[in-house]
Amino acid sequence: MRVTPILRQSAPSISAALRERVRRPALLKKLAEASDLAPLFKHDDYIGWSGFTGVGYPKTVPTAIADHVEANNLQASPDTKKKFNLFVGASVGPEVEDRWARLDMIARRYPHQVGKDVSKGINAGRIEFADKHLSMFPQDLTYGYYNLKKKHGDPKKPLDWAIVEATAITEDGKIVPGASVGATPEILQCAEKIIIEVNTLIPNLEGLHDINQSFIPPYRQPYLIKHVKDRIGEPAITIDTDRIVAIVESRKPDNTGPNAPESEDSRAIAAHLIEFLSEEVAADRLPKSLLPLQSGIGNVANSIIGGLADGPFEQVQVWTEVLQDTFIRFFDSGKLSFATATSIKFSPEGFDHFYSHWTEYKDRLLLRSQQVANSPEIIRRLGVIAMNTPLEVDIYAHANSTNALGSRMLNGLGGSADFLRNAKLSIMHTPSSRPTKTDPTGISCIVPFASHIDQTEHDLDVVVTEQGLADLRGLSPRERAPLIIEKCAHPDYKDLLHEYYERALHECLARGAGHEPHMLRNAFKFHTNLMEHGTMKVKSWE
Amino acid sequence: MRVTPILRQSAPSISAALRERVRRPALLKKLAEASDLAPLFKHDDYIGWSGFTGVGYPKTVPTAIADHVEANNLQASPDTKKKFNLFVGASVGPEVEDRWARLDMIARRYPHQVGKDVSKGINAGRIEFADKHLSMFPQDLTYGYYNLKKKHGDPKKPLDWAIVEATAITEDGKIVPGASVGATPEILQCAEKIIIEVNTLIPNLEGLHDINQSFIPPYRQPYLIKHVKDRIGEPAITIDTDRIVAIVESRKPDNTGPNAPESEDSRAIAAHLIEFLSEEVAADRLPKSLLPLQSGIGNVANSIIGGLADGPFEQVQVWTEVLQDTFIRFFDSGKLSFATATSIKFSPEGFDHFYSHWTEYKDRLLLRSQQVANSPEIIRRLGVIAMNTPLEVDIYAHANSTNALGSRMLNGLGGSADFLRNAKLSIMHTPSSRPTKTDPTGISCIVPFASHIDQTEHDLDVVVTEQGLADLRGLSPRERAPLIIEKCAHPDYKDLLHEYYERALHECLARGAGHEPHMLRNAFKFHTNLMEHGTMKVKSWE
Repeated sequence: MRVTPILRQSAPSISAALRERVRRPALLKKLAEASDLAPLFKHDDYIGWSGFTGVGYPKTVPTAIADHVEANNLQASPDTKKKFNLFVGASVGPEVEDRWARLDMIARRYPHQVGKDVSKGINAGRIEFADKHLSMFPQDLTYGYYNLKKKHGDPKKPLDWAIVEATAITEDGKIVPGASVGATPEILQCAEKIIIEVNTLIPNLEGLHDINQSFIPPYRQPYLIKHVKDRIGEPAITIDTDRIVAIVESRKPDNTGPNAPESEDSRAIAAHLIEFLSEEVAADRLPKSLLPLQSGIGNVANSIIGGLADGPFEQVQVWTEVLQDTFIRFFDSGKLSFATATSIKFSPEGFDHFYSHWTEYKDRLLLRSQQVANSPEIIRRLGVIAMNTPLEVDIYAHANSTNALGSRMLNGLGGSADFLRNAKLSIMHTPSSRPTKTDPTGISCIVPFASHIDQTEHDLDVVVTEQGLADLRGLSPRERAPLIIEKCAHPDYKDLLHEYYERALHECLARGAGHEPHMLRNAFKFHTNLMEHGTMKVKSWE
Repeated sequence: MRVTPILRQSAPSISAALRERVRRPALLKKLAEASDLAPLFKHDDYIGWSGFTGVGYPKTVPTAIADHVEANNLQASPDTKKKFNLFVGASVGPEVEDRWARLDMIARRYPHQVGKDVSKGINAGRIEFADKHLSMFPQDLTYGYYNLKKKHGDPKKPLDWAIVEATAITEDGKIVPGASVGATPEILQCAEKIIIEVNTLIPNLEGLHDINQSFIPPYRQPYLIKHVKDRIGEPAITIDTDRIVAIVESRKPDNTGPNAPESEDSRAIAAHLIEFLSEEVAADRLPKSLLPLQSGIGNVANSIIGGLADGPFEQVQVWTEVLQDTFIRFFDSGKLSFATATSIKFSPEGFDHFYSHWTEYKDRLLLRSQQVANSPEIIRRLGVIAMNTPLEVDIYAHANSTNALGSRMLNGLGGSADFLRNAKLSIMHTPSSRPTKTDPTGISCIVPFASHIDQTEHDLDVVVTEQGLADLRGLSPRERAPLIIEKCAHPDYKDLLHEYYERALHECLARGAGHEPHMLRNAFKFHTNLMEHGTMKVKSWE
């Protein structure tokens, strides 16, 4: 397919920086101003962006589209209104995504987000959202599962547009991503028209990425990765350059915020976990260098990685989704030998340090597509140790990763279930309680029945809070419940939870239904009490 | 390690059949009578059996152990009582497992069962049970996750005993299984002492199996299977023959019952599904020969496979857990080119036909270990089409595969989540309602909130009942709910479900929490109404 290049109002001048980064001169003829591109996007268009955890996303064109919509007051009338279907590997910077949401420019947003205004739109019914395992989103996109309702355009191309940030374009027209890969290869593969934002503010990250070809069944191939550092691809993304309709120079940084600060609780959780891992090594169930680690985002993850930097394990490897600032400390400690992820989400200071010490890190680090980074195949083969934070865990070890009180979406499932289902050790860590406006421990993170379930009892080995650690391996539900309550629940909730379990056990055994005892009439009483009284501290189970 | 051979009361004579099957003569010196072995099993022993879906399990030694317990009235006193920890790939014949349960000989039973008396014991609190993804059970056994509480024996050997049925032992001491592989390789690998029951009643099935080596991380290797018929192992299981303490001849058949008969509903479901698959082929999202099929057990599965035998697809391949009788018809139709599974669960008549026409089938069929048959890696790579039956599905497509009314265990998770999570098309089929004693449609299989969740909304693409088929791909929760209710719910429940959803939507949007609308106070009202009034038909949602 040939796509007509974009007609330009004004031919932008080519900066020296851009000329250095775009090593295929023919593409420089497609250089455009973002503001000229903005009007081309039509209502109901299907658009894919690069980006993952707020890094490596396009900043200039999406901003120009928002400027265009705002300046022309397009959303004021149903005749001019533009709402788009937006697909990104995971989350992008709030200055673009949240702005689109505030302008009501998002009809549909898959499969993950962290924008405050995006989630507001989702929960208000203005934005259709479905979260999906991050390993599966790119394949479902290529399968054509997200364009079943799309009536316009080439049915073989699920997306009308891909807008992708690059740090360079090679001589043979391959795209070198920024500090994330995410779903960018598949988004490029799925788009009719491609716009590349070449970011000349951040360094050319050539060599940091490992990009493999993504085939679909019956042609899919094994991922021949047996060690964390194995490469199975090449350093850049191959695309059909005829589909590039414009190149734009961008000089905006990734708008990452500071990392979540550690707390007394997060350090207590990390200490429990490092003790547990040490015991596993002593019992010969883990090698001395552990097995590759996955850790989520947030302050507990930061405390764990910080703890490992001071910890007893040497030559540790990391197979994860995203790296945060504490990984710099982990690298610098000499204890981390190699890390792979699909995104680097450093704070602005972290990125400054990383880019200026680039040569010290580049040979110990690899970024892969999210389909590979989160691949069940590789996670299971390597025997990853997975650690993630839920909203709540129930007494049988079902966990809610996404919906507060069962209905209010926070960010989405992310890769939590990719890792927890397939890891050798599946660990969830959470504070035992959270405050409400009226009660400093008004929310118990250990509940009788999770109000939404993303991870099932079949997928968790260990639950840990600042109170303690429950090792659930090999235990039946009747053995799990008392242990989780005893080890993990906040003291304010222990008696209530024990009483729920004992009453449920008594009732269920009496009717020959005591495998996983519940009182269904009371299963969500913690939650309804919270809605009515601002605390989960129920008066009684009567 | 050397294990002392069992002392024999009487040296059994060696039959001609046995001499033909045991091709390593030294092992014949270990020939024993089952009744002499029975007293060797001690209270709290950890025992693994071969067997999967009631096929290929040991029949003679477990029966002798039960005879011994019963004849000596051992269970009458705490001093003589024997309760065992029993690990089997999946279910075994009721004449052994249910008998053990009735005699209260089972302390713990992992990870799947279908015995009526076993589930009675589980739900009465006498048997500890935990279900687990069948792909993961063998690896968790080899990881040492099931013997964390075991205080006796070699800590490197999770099991005290393996009792395994074989149809032959080769010259180099390798074990040729019966009509299932299941977890037998890992159970043999994990056991201090091994007893082999050589079954001379059923044919020597040498050549039917593909047995690969099972390593644990960091040494695990890719499964290099790219096509359904690819072999990655050898025809028999390698073991340390020094650990064989006894050989027993067995002449008992696999005690399979008849297959579940088709019904009007199951045929209607199959028709919806075949229509859907035809549309997928027409839209070029599936090849004309489809992609490898997985189908569960039961009458709907039988109708689907029967429908495919008369259906429009040629050169179909099957990658599944277990084959039922209708596969014989599918093979005979010429439309099934190759099938692989971990077990063949034919009816007695089906087995008679299969064994007597062995040469017609043997080159189109392969049995693998459950770790391979249910491997997420291979299921995802091949793009399997997975079809399973739940107890209930909720309006957002979370499904309950295991616990009636949230607490009463039926059989266990099995491989349902291995397949549904990783398939290219994840399909659940169920009748829209089931009868209670007082109401022919007293149970709706579509509910507001599943009372137990084994499969999440992130893992289902299609829900189908005799009423119709809901294609959920690419839909948000707010789009899914009305569609599932409209297409799949029984007419007796449609209005009730629509009203639940509309009220929940209204309430949740009002408080900015409308991503997956629920009224938590009413979420289980179908279920509590059923417990109280024998029907899910609630009077109102007030």
